[in-house]
Amino acid sequence: MAEPLIPEDFSVQPAVFVSPLKWHLAHTTWFWEQFVLLPFDEDYKVYNDDFAYLFNSYYNNLGKRVLRPDRGNMTRPGLGEVVQYRAHIDAAMQYLLQKELSQNLQNIIEVGLNHEQQHQELFIYDAKYILGHQSTFPAYGNAFMPINEKQEMAFIAFPEGIYEIGYEGKGFCFDNELDRHKTYLNGFEIADRLVTNGQYLEFINGGGYDDFNLWHDDGWHWKNNNHVSAPLYWHLIEGEWHEYDLNGLHRLNPDAPLKHISFYEAHAYAAYRGMRLPTEAEWEVASHSFNWGQVWEWTNSAYLPYPGFRTAPGALGEYNGKFMVNTMVLRGASIATPAGHSRPTYRNFFHPDMRWQYSGIRLAKTTR
Amino acid sequence: MAEPLIPEDFSVQPAVFVSPLKWHLAHTTWFWEQFVLLPFDEDYKVYNDDFAYLFNSYYNNLGKRVLRPDRGNMTRPGLGEVVQYRAHIDAAMQYLLQKELSQNLQNIIEVGLNHEQQHQELFIYDAKYILGHQSTFPAYGNAFMPINEKQEMAFIAFPEGIYEIGYEGKGFCFDNELDRHKTYLNGFEIADRLVTNGQYLEFINGGGYDDFNLWHDDGWHWKNNNHVSAPLYWHLIEGEWHEYDLNGLHRLNPDAPLKHISFYEAHAYAAYRGMRLPTEAEWEVASHSFNWGQVWEWTNSAYLPYPGFRTAPGALGEYNGKFMVNTMVLRGASIATPAGHSRPTYRNFFHPDMRWQYSGIRLAKTTR
Amino acid sequence: MAEPLIPEDFSVQPAVFVSPLKWHLAHTTWFWEQFVLLPFDEDYKVYNDDFAYLFNSYYNNLGKRVLRPDRGNMTRPGLGEVVQYRAHIDAAMQYLLQKELSQNLQNIIEVGLNHEQQHQELFIYDAKYILGHQSTFPAYGNAFMPINEKQEMAFIAFPEGIYEIGYEGKGFCFDNELDRHKTYLNGFEIADRLVTNGQYLEFINGGGYDDFNLWHDDGWHWKNNNHVSAPLYWHLIEGEWHEYDLNGLHRLNPDAPLKHISFYEAHAYAAYRGMRLPTEAEWEVASHSFNWGQVWEWTNSAYLPYPGFRTAPGALGEYNGKFMVNTMVLRGASIATPAGHSRPTYRNFFHPDMRWQYSGIRLAKTTR
Amino acid sequence: MAEPLIPEDFSVQPAVFVSPLKWHLAHTTWFWEQFVLLPFDEDYKVYNDDFAYLFNSYYNNLGKRVLRPDRGNMTRPGLGEVVQYRAHIDAAMQYLLQKELSQNLQNIIEVGLNHEQQHQELFIYDAKYILGHQSTFPAYGNAFMPINEKQEMAFIAFPEGIYEIGYEGKGFCFDNELDRHKTYLNGFEIADRLVTNGQYLEFINGGGYDDFNLWHDDGWHWKNNNHVSAPLYWHLIEGEWHEYDLNGLHRLNPDAPLKHISFYEAHAYAAYRGMRLPTEAEWEVASHSFNWGQVWEWTNSAYLPYPGFRTAPGALGEYNGKFMVNTMVLRGASIATPAGHSRPTYRNFFHPDMRWQYSGIRLAKTTR
Repeated sequence: MAEPLIPEDFSVQPAVFVSPLKWHLAHTTWFWEQFVLLPFDEDYKVYNDDFAYLFNSYYNNLGKRVLRPDRGNMTRPGLGEVVQYRAHIDAAMQYLLQKELSQNLQNIIEVGLNHEQQHQELFIYDAKYILGHQSTFPAYGNAFMPINEKQEMAFIAFPEGIYEIGYEGKGFCFDNELDRHKTYLNGFEIADRLVTNGQYLEFINGGGYDDFNLWHDDGWHWKNNNHVSAPLYWHLIEGEWHEYDLNGLHRLNPDAPLKHISFYEAHAYAAYRGMRLPTEAEWEVASHSFNWGQVWEWTNSAYLPYPGFRTAPGALGEYNGKFMVNTMVLRGASIATPAGHSRPTYRNFFHPDMRWQYSGIRLAKTTR
Repeated sequence: MAEPLIPEDFSVQPAVFVSPLKWHLAHTTWFWEQFVLLPFDEDYKVYNDDFAYLFNSYYNNLGKRVLRPDRGNMTRPGLGEVVQYRAHIDAAMQYLLQKELSQNLQNIIEVGLNHEQQHQELFIYDAKYILGHQSTFPAYGNAFMPINEKQEMAFIAFPEGIYEIGYEGKGFCFDNELDRHKTYLNGFEIADRLVTNGQYLEFINGGGYDDFNLWHDDGWHWKNNNHVSAPLYWHLIEGEWHEYDLNGLHRLNPDAPLKHISFYEAHAYAAYRGMRLPTEAEWEVASHSFNWGQVWEWTNSAYLPYPGFRTAPGALGEYNGKFMVNTMVLRGASIATPAGHSRPTYRNFFHPDMRWQYSGIRLAKTTR
Repeated sequence: MAEPLIPEDFSVQPAVFVSPLKWHLAHTTWFWEQFVLLPFDEDYKVYNDDFAYLFNSYYNNLGKRVLRPDRGNMTRPGLGEVVQYRAHIDAAMQYLLQKELSQNLQNIIEVGLNHEQQHQELFIYDAKYILGHQSTFPAYGNAFMPINEKQEMAFIAFPEGIYEIGYEGKGFCFDNELDRHKTYLNGFEIADRLVTNGQYLEFINGGGYDDFNLWHDDGWHWKNNNHVSAPLYWHLIEGEWHEYDLNGLHRLNPDAPLKHISFYEAHAYAAYRGMRLPTEAEWEVASHSFNWGQVWEWTNSAYLPYPGFRTAPGALGEYNGKFMVNTMVLRGASIATPAGHSRPTYRNFFHPDMRWQYSGIRLAKTTR
Repeated sequence: MAEPLIPEDFSVQPAVFVSPLKWHLAHTTWFWEQFVLLPFDEDYKVYNDDFAYLFNSYYNNLGKRVLRPDRGNMTRPGLGEVVQYRAHIDAAMQYLLQKELSQNLQNIIEVGLNHEQQHQELFIYDAKYILGHQSTFPAYGNAFMPINEKQEMAFIAFPEGIYEIGYEGKGFCFDNELDRHKTYLNGFEIADRLVTNGQYLEFINGGGYDDFNLWHDDGWHWKNNNHVSAPLYWHLIEGEWHEYDLNGLHRLNPDAPLKHISFYEAHAYAAYRGMRLPTEAEWEVASHSFNWGQVWEWTNSAYLPYPGFRTAPGALGEYNGKFMVNTMVLRGASIATPAGHSRPTYRNFFHPDMRWQYSGIRLAKTTR
């Protein structure tokens, strides 16, 4: 994933929500050192004491440290040294994995693998953001590109009743997917495919960005304050809409699934069509009936604890629970999600103004 | 309600979320003119053309108007003229009310009465904020003061199952209380009284404001950025906690119900006690089992549409739906709520950082 | 001066640089109490202990005070009580003035009178700003209105040589006007009248606000960030320029002297005409040759200490010296300047972006 | 100068006033292409059309360009490509320099050399800022380090009278050094050496940062808002003052000249000593009497046009004149100034809050 990039791409942070790419490499490495090697391998020798501080995302637990220089523009350690750090940890992990491991340690390693997969996806978001904000719009390559949606859009109906949602099984899941529990749903219908660029263009041309009746109050202010009038990465060049994608700047493809929109835009689009976004329960219940996995799909569900949710003890407990306010749930997965990291109960979440992730729209409506 | 105040108190706006008191007087008056008198009384003569613009809170529907001066410091019209405007409308309404009214018009008048009641409560919040931010901490009077909670706190248990929530009946309700619908609840327990000042003081003295494990991530940043370390209106004077209330600045009463805290603080307090806030469905289901009405009670429910929610057409449709993101539900009522304006299905809502309203905490826990 | 206003006008502060009108009344009163009555009249009884804190503009010297409520929206004490405070101090001063006064005390009283005159002028600026930012553009009255300039503009030439500037004499002057000293001037010419609204309109219509070659770098950013495209109080209504003045909103008078422009605009206008602003030394040397006193005239001199400048000891020493950076000198006086408060050596100063004061332009050029 | 750095160091911009190091390399290269090769060498082939846009600092003259991506985090072109661009231009310049050049072209080349020298100095400031804000405080090397000042400080007196300042001669100078002109100075004394770290530490320990009587009003707010309590790059580690310098983080050397202070701090320090900063005229007149060139010396002169100043026509006219407001003059040179770029009439200037440049203090006083 890092191969198409040059060293300079790894150090910048063009927006608060973007992490320097080098930081992803180092932070996922640090995770193994901090949660696996240091506590469980008495032979392990720390690579560099400073790195424990530099690449810790859980800064709340930090504590002592006299000086606090700006971390937003970290050029040192350089990419070369981070790659060495990674090699050091890889070797130590391979050594450890040949031993017999306790169930507890196996569980932590499983969390580490899932953690690394999440950062792999964020790495793509951030790389795209960094490249897509260069004046020259350099291409990354042909990977991670969605395919066209089918032409016709149909709706699938589900009757009123008690359903169950939440993870059940022996595999890995995050704490926020538990407990599996009953929920009562009214009758609803849900689209069998995503909204496309072409459909969204109708919303733009139809004045969707100027009709406040379609928008949440917060969304209307967000749109105005940030002068938003199109999805992220869309550029109107001499009257023609273009999209920057990982393969460069090209004319907009009307048949590709729409991506890089905020929750506010998703909601306004649905209102424009006289429909709404599905709730996360509706999405999960219906998910076996349609294809998903091209883009994360905004739901109209706020990200809140399931009944019986318990925060894991210790530093890993900060993983999910503390974000359960002001964020909205996205369901599904995206073409940037690593293989094996998807499941129908997965609860992704972002603040409603975020759109540098691969996010799109599936429509729903209440059965009357 | 306006009587204890002086003209100067009516014009200032010390924070974005506060409205000038004069504006409340004029805006509720304007509502009658705009939605009742102008459309339904052909004899009605407009008091002043400018007022339609000045006292419109639905600015989105506005349209023409060349100049946009600052509205935050509106000294003209003065209080005297606003009082005259109000007398003019009162007279016109009394004249109209003697006629035979269509059902549609009766419905609009009912909305107008409820609208005015909401502003009466906001008037108290704003008056308190204005007076409580004067250097001299002037008293408003002895009205709108909560009474002490009972000493013991017990929990009431409810079993798992299908419940119904939402308004049903022939009386008035807002669109956001509809439709009444089924919901599935896991077993839970809920406190039979509110958290008191004295209990919250234990949280402060126990380091609650400094333990990030208790806080949402957004809450932690809110607290730090705004240097919050106590409820609004609490002042530590020479080692002794005082509270500004409508009757002036006094020593903190440990037995009174806690008020003026944000959702973030409510959540952190509950976590400190190893419990949680109730959901709005739990609250509504349990509400017949305890006394409520002293302060609005934060729930852990995001403010979202009920199944089957429909926005009312026209300007009144902006009333509720557009705020259904980033806000949290409060249930109950407060001592500042006008008589007859309370019901168990009422859904109040605020952004999670707001705390100038009368807001408090009722604890809940999941039955294991 | 306060007579045309209503109580509500006295409490608001629509911009940081504006003081509530009530504060001017109280602060000038406080000056007599603090610097004259308390130190020199042992019979004097303090009106209200809180007022020493509330109406102190020299907050740096303050010290202890536990609570720090917001002072930007001070409604209490109300206007009525401030007027009583003023009456109390007036009476005490009249009593004191019948005694024999030391030279030192006479000097302080003279400073107090000049201080009050300065606030009288600021009172007019602030009243105009408050009224001029009401939606209804209420008139204050016909006072403080400039008269038209003569039609022809001629230039008066001064030869190269040593000149003297700074105050000399037995009357009152501020410390920043001292010492009178020699300065060497190159030959220059200066206009015999002010720039008019009509001339400035040519600058606007000629694209002056869009040609960055005319502007300072800081001015260009100020203009863009604040969306400035005309003087303060100018409004383009249906294609016709209007000006709000103390007598209300009227069509622009092309023959009146231009007022309410920033230093940045003054500089850009002069550059547009291929000329420059005079230095303060040029202005003072030439001032006997033209009429002045309608508006304060921006010079191209930064406000800096004269050779031999000494800060006065004590609190009065904060009066002038601490503002000698980032501010530009204005010379002359305005129609809002109290009679007897003007002299050719007077050094007024403001940050270059300020324009709610009565400020205008007199052109100059270097003799080649 | 670029040699001790790694590629990542060249792309970041940790503060608005810092330019990415890569940008310096490219922009000085662009200058030759834009002002010399394109207009004067018909054989010249443009290296890359995009670079004209990317590396133009005079963006005001830009004009067409549809898209405006963020330029603050430019990773592309990478350092490698910029070095190639530089080689391309070097070759083209060497080719051109073998031809016979008009006087006009020679003049432009001379400006280009001086322009490049200025950026060489800025390169050092920026490299130091980038390295000095890494958590690991990496060293750049032993270059550009000031030497200790002599122990004793004496004052040199100059009598009242007419002096001449400004550039005269046949060499190169900037437009802001012209015309040479007469100025009248009162008697003054000026120190024969710079203020040292040790002396400044007395100011800190003596409460200089807490005594508002020493500070300009703007300086006092700057200091408080930015939590400034020591020069840039000073760190108090376990009770001991350290300074980050290009050779790393070390204990403070009390005998080295103080550097990296703002004008506000320089002024406050001088006031603390009961003295003042020299004016730029005093400095220039006295400059033959003392050693200078270790750090730029703040004067108390605002940066304003000399009598007879004329802006050069065209894009080069933006070089100096447009900054003549809100900035203060520094005189002398620093150890980072390239050889041959110093002269006593040189007028450097910065906003009064800037301190990442090598800036220091020489004291002066008025002869009484």
